[in-house]
Amino acid sequence: MISKIHPPSSTWVDVPPGSDFPLHNLPYGIFSYDGKKPRVGVAIGNHVIDMSYLFKRGFLEILFMNENVFKSRTLNRFIALGRPAWNATRKRLFELLDEKNPELRDKNEDIALILIPVQKVQMHLPLHIGNYTDFYSSREHAYNVGKMFRPDGEPLLPNWKHIPVAYHGRASSIMASGVHFHRPKGQLMPEGALTPVLKSTQQLDFEVEMAFVIGRENAHGTAISTAEAENHIFGMVVFNDWSARDIQKWEYVPLGPFLSKNFISTISPWIVTLDALEPFRCESPLKETQVLPYLHDEGEKSFDIEIQTFIKPKDSKPTLVSTTNHKYLYWSIAQQLAHHTINGCNMKIGDMCASGTISGPTPDAFGSMLELTWRGERPLILADGSKRKFIHDGDTVIMHAFAQIGSKRVGFGLCKSTVLPSI
Amino acid sequence: MISKIHPPSSTWVDVPPGSDFPLHNLPYGIFSYDGKKPRVGVAIGNHVIDMSYLFKRGFLEILFMNENVFKSRTLNRFIALGRPAWNATRKRLFELLDEKNPELRDKNEDIALILIPVQKVQMHLPLHIGNYTDFYSSREHAYNVGKMFRPDGEPLLPNWKHIPVAYHGRASSIMASGVHFHRPKGQLMPEGALTPVLKSTQQLDFEVEMAFVIGRENAHGTAISTAEAENHIFGMVVFNDWSARDIQKWEYVPLGPFLSKNFISTISPWIVTLDALEPFRCESPLKETQVLPYLHDEGEKSFDIEIQTFIKPKDSKPTLVSTTNHKYLYWSIAQQLAHHTINGCNMKIGDMCASGTISGPTPDAFGSMLELTWRGERPLILADGSKRKFIHDGDTVIMHAFAQIGSKRVGFGLCKSTVLPSI
Repeated sequence: MISKIHPPSSTWVDVPPGSDFPLHNLPYGIFSYDGKKPRVGVAIGNHVIDMSYLFKRGFLEILFMNENVFKSRTLNRFIALGRPAWNATRKRLFELLDEKNPELRDKNEDIALILIPVQKVQMHLPLHIGNYTDFYSSREHAYNVGKMFRPDGEPLLPNWKHIPVAYHGRASSIMASGVHFHRPKGQLMPEGALTPVLKSTQQLDFEVEMAFVIGRENAHGTAISTAEAENHIFGMVVFNDWSARDIQKWEYVPLGPFLSKNFISTISPWIVTLDALEPFRCESPLKETQVLPYLHDEGEKSFDIEIQTFIKPKDSKPTLVSTTNHKYLYWSIAQQLAHHTINGCNMKIGDMCASGTISGPTPDAFGSMLELTWRGERPLILADGSKRKFIHDGDTVIMHAFAQIGSKRVGFGLCKSTVLPSI
Repeated sequence: MISKIHPPSSTWVDVPPGSDFPLHNLPYGIFSYDGKKPRVGVAIGNHVIDMSYLFKRGFLEILFMNENVFKSRTLNRFIALGRPAWNATRKRLFELLDEKNPELRDKNEDIALILIPVQKVQMHLPLHIGNYTDFYSSREHAYNVGKMFRPDGEPLLPNWKHIPVAYHGRASSIMASGVHFHRPKGQLMPEGALTPVLKSTQQLDFEVEMAFVIGRENAHGTAISTAEAENHIFGMVVFNDWSARDIQKWEYVPLGPFLSKNFISTISPWIVTLDALEPFRCESPLKETQVLPYLHDEGEKSFDIEIQTFIKPKDSKPTLVSTTNHKYLYWSIAQQLAHHTINGCNMKIGDMCASGTISGPTPDAFGSMLELTWRGERPLILADGSKRKFIHDGDTVIMHAFAQIGSKRVGFGLCKSTVLPSI
């Protein structure tokens, strides 16, 4: 079960007010600095804890681990150790960072090796992602898209309220925040044309999503229940599911999106654990239809996590264009995972399941340019006066997710990526 | 480029007539025997060459390899060495197996360690498959499915003749031949019902496919041309894309098949290299529409590979139910790969791209029960007199692919899997 380990009341590490990474958070990532090999890090305030040095210096004498766990280029080994290891590590970090504990606090030489200033680090993709699934779990998003593309029919298809609809995506092109990319080319059918053309997408879009990371496998042929699902989840990231709408429109029948999605997806540098998200639980939206028993899900299974999205044109300031929230998702992460495995599909450590675009009930909470500009009919005006129907070359899209109650806050760091001109 | 290394005229290893594995083939797999760890093997006649022993005993002194390449549990390391290593290995095996060469032929002690009788071995999944894509490249299959599910419209959708349509599948549930599975459960909407139910699929089906294996990566953001595509492909396998038609029908709009496909896919134990398939090249079907230049593809880019499918009920003999051929595919593997990467999507060593169901022009060449029985309207009668609309519990589905011109033959071994009752 999710741990109920509480942090000490304060830490000797300086944490600026409003930081994404107070003591309560302790998110995991893979980082490098000073030309050293990528390794496991934990964020606190404006520093990254080099977990491999912490281990090497003897501060993590936890029986079931070896040095390679924290020297690894991905978090898969650590995650594979399971909840006992996650709990023990969280507990031990709380102890070491406790203001009252001199164990590490008073060892300046160790601190210099272990606490790396965030300005010095480069973040990397934190996981080997073997399989990636994208859900379609926001009612508002599915409704908006249905209304746009099937104006004469019911916006929601008949299966939507019974199934957490999902499809498989491409794992190899999931990249760390900070990886830029060239505007992709693709085959598309221009308005009114009779034959398709190959050109750069003219409708490059972001999609605001959150994704959870598998932390415990199920055997092939067995299902995970909604009650057990969260025990199979290590944590969550922010997920920008970059999309090319014009390519998508031409390619997607009858088997779904393909090249319109698999050129890149960008994730936040930090994986926030479910333990850290525990205080931010909330109810999911009420189900409008009776769902089958295998999807029954009791209690607070959603999370109140705000996600802000900014567009920053080249040499200009960012403009906030969308503020949405994980809690708007109709289907919970437990329901998603229970559905994914009801046929015995085997989940692997490090697999990623994204939520699908998260749109809220009001237009400023829509999670894609497609919806924010209503297919380009109502362009957004940015702080520098420029207009956007979709994303321009030189634009940086920045997503920032955080949960906050009073002074208790956990954040995911910035998920950002810049669009370069087509090659 | 594909190697033009020719085999010697005969070998000292006994190869029975009609074997899938004469000297010309030399397909790669992962096998174990006598309780030893899985390792790299090459099939010849009724034996498997233990490549790790061959290396250990000094017969493969090829500079760019180390022992771990052949001791590995997957072929990924070997494949990652690239075409120079594949060519050098093929050339060296031809030398060692040459009837005229006493080097290995006369060393009975070595032979006993290196040539393992096929009865003693167990085959394993030969690859770490990071990403799996399923194409939809058989015109006849797309036409049949369109005719069944959209009886009032054009059977082929407008994009089909312009795009090698594809979607992402699940890599984790691709299993080796011989892995059996329980009939999957899923959510489906019974005929005439108003609410869905959770039950075992009543329409379990196979799909006859071939898949190619990526042998060379492209950098993220770069495309692979049709001219270069085959240099990025290591070889091919037979691929049974098990499907649950009733689950598929209810879940697949608007984002494509998901749980109806990802419970298991079964592949042949042996990967046949493009080198071995070289003599069996043939033209693809004529394109009915002008395609965009990035899909132009000259010369013989298809392969004349027959694929037979048998259903074997429990305690009964197998019945041949379908005979199709790789050459029926409208889109070549080079066109598939060029399309897959035109947006810069990055392919990884060991990734698998399946063809989609291969159906031929005549009803006996259809590649799924859906088509063979026309949605169950025309059940098949098996050799034991029993009828099949779809696959029953206890049935073993066996696919056998081979190419043959005169006495020159290469085969893939049997791709088989048995359906057990639902749990």
